[in-house]
Amino acid sequence: MNILIVHCHPEPRSFNAALTDIAMASLTQEGHEVHVSDLYAEGFDPVERASHFNSRADPEYFSALTEQRHHVQSDTLPSDVQREIDRLRQADLVILQFPLWWHAQPAMLKGWFDRVFVYGGLYSGTYRYDRGPLKGKRAICSVTTGAPASTFSPGGRSGDIATLMWPILCSLYYVGFDVLPPHITYGVQGGGLSYQDELAFHDHLEQAKHQWETRLRHWQTEKAIPFTGWQDWDEQGQTVDAHPLRWRT
Amino acid sequence: MNILIVHCHPEPRSFNAALTDIAMASLTQEGHEVHVSDLYAEGFDPVERASHFNSRADPEYFSALTEQRHHVQSDTLPSDVQREIDRLRQADLVILQFPLWWHAQPAMLKGWFDRVFVYGGLYSGTYRYDRGPLKGKRAICSVTTGAPASTFSPGGRSGDIATLMWPILCSLYYVGFDVLPPHITYGVQGGGLSYQDELAFHDHLEQAKHQWETRLRHWQTEKAIPFTGWQDWDEQGQTVDAHPLRWRT
Ligand SMILES: Cc1cc2nc3c(=O)[nH]c(=O)nc-3n(C[C@H](O)[C@H](O)[C@H](O)COP(=O)(O)O)c2cc1C
Ligand SMILES: Cc1cc2nc3c(=O)[nH]c(=O)nc-3n(C[C@H](O)[C@H](O)[C@H](O)COP(=O)(O)O)c2cc1C
Repeated sequence: MNILIVHCHPEPRSFNAALTDIAMASLTQEGHEVHVSDLYAEGFDPVERASHFNSRADPEYFSALTEQRHHVQSDTLPSDVQREIDRLRQADLVILQFPLWWHAQPAMLKGWFDRVFVYGGLYSGTYRYDRGPLKGKRAICSVTTGAPASTFSPGGRSGDIATLMWPILCSLYYVGFDVLPPHITYGVQGGGLSYQDELAFHDHLEQAKHQWETRLRHWQTEKAIPFTGWQDWDEQGQTVDAHPLRWRT
Repeated sequence: MNILIVHCHPEPRSFNAALTDIAMASLTQEGHEVHVSDLYAEGFDPVERASHFNSRADPEYFSALTEQRHHVQSDTLPSDVQREIDRLRQADLVILQFPLWWHAQPAMLKGWFDRVFVYGGLYSGTYRYDRGPLKGKRAICSVTTGAPASTFSPGGRSGDIATLMWPILCSLYYVGFDVLPPHITYGVQGGGLSYQDELAFHDHLEQAKHQWETRLRHWQTEKAIPFTGWQDWDEQGQTVDAHPLRWRT
């Protein structure tokens, strides 16, 4: 199978980089073809703005949605965006590897959504959610946090991890992905600096390696998050359910 | 009072730009001193990365937290970050004006959190949440959405608006802000293009103007979101509450 890892971290020897290396090694060993979008290394520009678009549909007024759709239709998307879309279309599994920064993905990865998930290409008013163009593909977020696991419980001071992850998981589902429950590695202390830190870093990494490898072994059969879909919604876009996010840790 | 509007939108004639103008005009008229951080216009770089730091604590291994704290201590923060912190420290009220992009703030504004809310400056292990350095200041998000209000109910297909806003509201609370319930303008269609659109745009804007002005009149007395704080948490960072977010629309 074809696997894309979207890797978001500024330091090549970080815990996050190690998790990407682990995924790459173990998935390659199982015979999969693995590609990496290393957003920092590739100098991806996460800011959606007018200057990315060469032949504007409306040169007077910049609407990101209008220009995205127009540039999809005329096959003139910015080359970095087109490359990411090509990678996504080839992938059977997409892994997003990132640290939790301010209760969400770093700006670099947030902008990957803003720019790459183009209107008229990866979704439209009718082709989205369970009818999204990337239907049949699977996605999983592998996230590291600084705060310990206990603080991410529903009553925890870091916030319920299911709540924090919702905007990201829901965005993946929006373009059609079967979204697997995220894989969270809690309480990761940064590397660098002192010997003490380095020992703790490698201990934690050994543990995390084992957990990540074990998790990845079942990516093809694991049950995806059961989001609600078109058949569950009325004309106002509401369900009878109290909450469409059913995933729990 | 001193008010800072952090404005995040690439188009100067957008609905969002109009909302910023409305806030500026009405707050100025009430005698407040209003400043605007126009992130797109100022060319803010939202990506936290090594190249922003001139005299690294650890030149071998880039840790954002280590460098943020080190550059706070040596008073050598990047000038754009220092400018934003100065503006925040002067403000009694901070307004974040942005469109909802992929169930969250645009990357440009996400990176404003990543870079400006510096470790060792705007928070530390002991000075955060209700002990955060920006204690006593108020913050409010003014957000526009494309999807209609009904889809943002707890069972709605856009996701519960309280859930979507949590990572942002919680990040503001983390540095000490009293966070007011967000002001959401739903169902905003982009401007530009056709006459039809332009009429709808101005109709909607008239309505939105009235609502935003009314809301802003009470910013000093409105009740902030009652987040839990240090006294509510045990050593594991957990509360007896099921969920620390009590705000509902
Ligand atoms: C800008 C920034 C914001 C952060 N925000 C959070 C946060 O909201 N919650 C948390 O648990 N950790 C937070 N952290 C800590 C990181 O999640 C942690 O350092 C990272 O997961 C460790 O992995 P790494 O060494 O590969 O970077 C933040 C770190 C930075 C640099
Ligand atoms: C990249 C991008 C992502 C968007 N994601 C969402 C979304 O998740 N939910 C939503 O209701 N609207 C979404 N929209 C629509 C915008 O929220 C809407 O166009 C904006 O609020 C209108 O205000 P403006 O004309 O000032 O840009 C998105 C628009 C763009 C460009």
